[in-house]
Amino acid sequence: MKTSRRTILKSGLNLAAAAATPTLIFPKTRMGYSHSEIEAHLKDGNGLTRSDLVTPCLVLDLDAFEANLSKMAAHCKTSKINLRPHGKSHKCPEIAARQIKAGAIGLSVATIREAEAMAAAGIKGMLITSELVGRPKIVRLLKMLPKAPDTMVVVDNLSHAQELNDAAAAARLKLNVLIDVDPGSRRTGVASGAPTIAFAEKLMKMPSLKLRGFHCYSGSSAHITGFDARRQHSANAMLPAIETFNQLKKNGLPLEILSGGSTGTYNIDPGFNGMTELQCGSYVFMDVEYQMIGGQSNEKFYDDFASSLTVMATVISRNHADRATTDAGIKSFATDRKFGPNFKDLTGARVMITSDEHGTILLDNPSRDLKVGDRLEFIVPHCDPNVNLYDRMYCVSGEKVVDTWRIVGRHGD
Amino acid sequence: MKTSRRTILKSGLNLAAAAATPTLIFPKTRMGYSHSEIEAHLKDGNGLTRSDLVTPCLVLDLDAFEANLSKMAAHCKTSKINLRPHGKSHKCPEIAARQIKAGAIGLSVATIREAEAMAAAGIKGMLITSELVGRPKIVRLLKMLPKAPDTMVVVDNLSHAQELNDAAAAARLKLNVLIDVDPGSRRTGVASGAPTIAFAEKLMKMPSLKLRGFHCYSGSSAHITGFDARRQHSANAMLPAIETFNQLKKNGLPLEILSGGSTGTYNIDPGFNGMTELQCGSYVFMDVEYQMIGGQSNEKFYDDFASSLTVMATVISRNHADRATTDAGIKSFATDRKFGPNFKDLTGARVMITSDEHGTILLDNPSRDLKVGDRLEFIVPHCDPNVNLYDRMYCVSGEKVVDTWRIVGRHGD
Repeated sequence: MKTSRRTILKSGLNLAAAAATPTLIFPKTRMGYSHSEIEAHLKDGNGLTRSDLVTPCLVLDLDAFEANLSKMAAHCKTSKINLRPHGKSHKCPEIAARQIKAGAIGLSVATIREAEAMAAAGIKGMLITSELVGRPKIVRLLKMLPKAPDTMVVVDNLSHAQELNDAAAAARLKLNVLIDVDPGSRRTGVASGAPTIAFAEKLMKMPSLKLRGFHCYSGSSAHITGFDARRQHSANAMLPAIETFNQLKKNGLPLEILSGGSTGTYNIDPGFNGMTELQCGSYVFMDVEYQMIGGQSNEKFYDDFASSLTVMATVISRNHADRATTDAGIKSFATDRKFGPNFKDLTGARVMITSDEHGTILLDNPSRDLKVGDRLEFIVPHCDPNVNLYDRMYCVSGEKVVDTWRIVGRHGD
Repeated sequence: MKTSRRTILKSGLNLAAAAATPTLIFPKTRMGYSHSEIEAHLKDGNGLTRSDLVTPCLVLDLDAFEANLSKMAAHCKTSKINLRPHGKSHKCPEIAARQIKAGAIGLSVATIREAEAMAAAGIKGMLITSELVGRPKIVRLLKMLPKAPDTMVVVDNLSHAQELNDAAAAARLKLNVLIDVDPGSRRTGVASGAPTIAFAEKLMKMPSLKLRGFHCYSGSSAHITGFDARRQHSANAMLPAIETFNQLKKNGLPLEILSGGSTGTYNIDPGFNGMTELQCGSYVFMDVEYQMIGGQSNEKFYDDFASSLTVMATVISRNHADRATTDAGIKSFATDRKFGPNFKDLTGARVMITSDEHGTILLDNPSRDLKVGDRLEFIVPHCDPNVNLYDRMYCVSGEKVVDTWRIVGRHGD
């Protein structure tokens, strides 16, 4: 019978017919699971390991991640500052829920898509940190608000504020807004001082907006190398906003919130005595970029938080002595910085990410040999856009895969 | 009654309660649709336009796209060469089906995820152009084969070939393989000449593999600037593979397929008289990178195919005379090249993509003023990784949105 099957297969390559026969047997292996099968196996407690995963994939080391959560929560408690961590880093409701459980007062998000996805997952206390301009986004915001009524949005322009006010009025809603104050980056925001004071007074007259405070995020402070230089940069960015905030409160405006700060300035900004909350995001994962900025205690290597996020790849070709080729290229890594990913546990090698689906490992003096089929893990260059490339992350503890978390609110709806 | 509602809203910001009341009215507008609403409206023939879309989003100009499809189909017919276009550029079953309808013999894909997604959509004649190494991918391949039994995979290493053979034997399947021949890139592949001949002879002895021919893709030829230089580069890359292919056929091996070629060499490679099929991908969209390489008839600007793919963005901040800020940043554009996107219809301005969710437009001498809320369209820098950032593309004809197509097989399962 085996011979006859082989004859069929050889003659016509009629695999569809072969597949339909009841004698077809798939290899007995625990590998090669689809995502839904992995989810089912995780529910069964079926003992999946990293080697069961199809690469390239995004891997979250849960132990490192949980240590990062706890450290930031404790820091904010000690520093008497609220934490509304930024969800644009993770786009993951499972992480948002854990941040809130650890003490965060809500979640910052960057887009209406992130806000909708997080609202659908039951996340409250959201601040949308980019201006939602244009009717399509404003209508989506108003449709979302019943699920997350305490959501706040930012404004830096009077015509936009008027459009928000009119739309909220038509919907018979009151919309929580923060003034987006420019920390000097000239990206978005109103200049601090007189322009912000004049803008605030106009917003106070818009009946369907409720002005709650300021959003002032200095992205350019976050990655200044050297702790002292970073503190100085953040002071230059934030102190004018804090002064304006205090002036408006003295003028009688009921401002409660001054939100800003990054993973790079989490232990700097509370010292300014004026910001009410931090919106750090990257601390949950860390990346090559943050490692390079240097910390307060370790000037060479910013190790306040642990590196919890990696991309796992497989060596797929090894036909040259000086190099190996992996299955993780441009589509698997953020490529917006001049530097690429770092090896998690290989030294004496360099990685080049120049092909869409391939990575080149240059083996100068590698700490171990690489064979076809070997797995490699990489610390991501820049965590936010790297996460944005994936639809889920696999949560591991040691070799075990213990969970899989969705990444939502990408460029979908 | 209006007053009492306002009082409620002001006092407790209890929007959840407000939302639950029957008097809640959303603005009467056709904008702000979610994706599922857009799909429903398209079915109703409800006349959606570009301005209904939430930005940033990926837009496909259907007229330009269809012209590209027809031009490549006609070219391959005239040149008497098969077309198995590369699906890694679009990851879109709707496009794959249209390519096949226009005469393509199947679809090239880069990953097991793309292959599975295309098989689920009924696409046949697939060639997976990257080595599927490791048990998880091989098992997924074998599970997929009944749906797409004529799928071919590539091999460049004996131990990998043996693993494929053994897995196929255990599954009682016969697996179609092509030798991945190195065009000189040293990325993947066996060197042409003696190494490939020896490898082919060993593959012929593996009973569960069926050697169908060669895959030889010279990615580095695709973007050589200048038609003559590109022809010379592609000749250097492909002629040794063609010679080896002919030698093996003379030796009696039943080889049928020599697959390679790119959008940059579509009108070069057929002239080598030896390749049996082209696997061009980018021609359906085009991008800034391809525009720069120069064509046969137009040395300055490669305009053999039309630019059909854009990212649409919205101006969200305009507080400085010299610049505008949009909602499309690093997460909306491929950033793997040194150059960024090009404006579709704005001159006298430059775009900087350095923030995750923001783009900066430097207004040197702009051909039109930009206001908050204005839309801008950008030709993408590099189409394959740019498409990979999105979950769907909106198909337009002029101002009308006429369809929405899914992008599948990303880093999901």
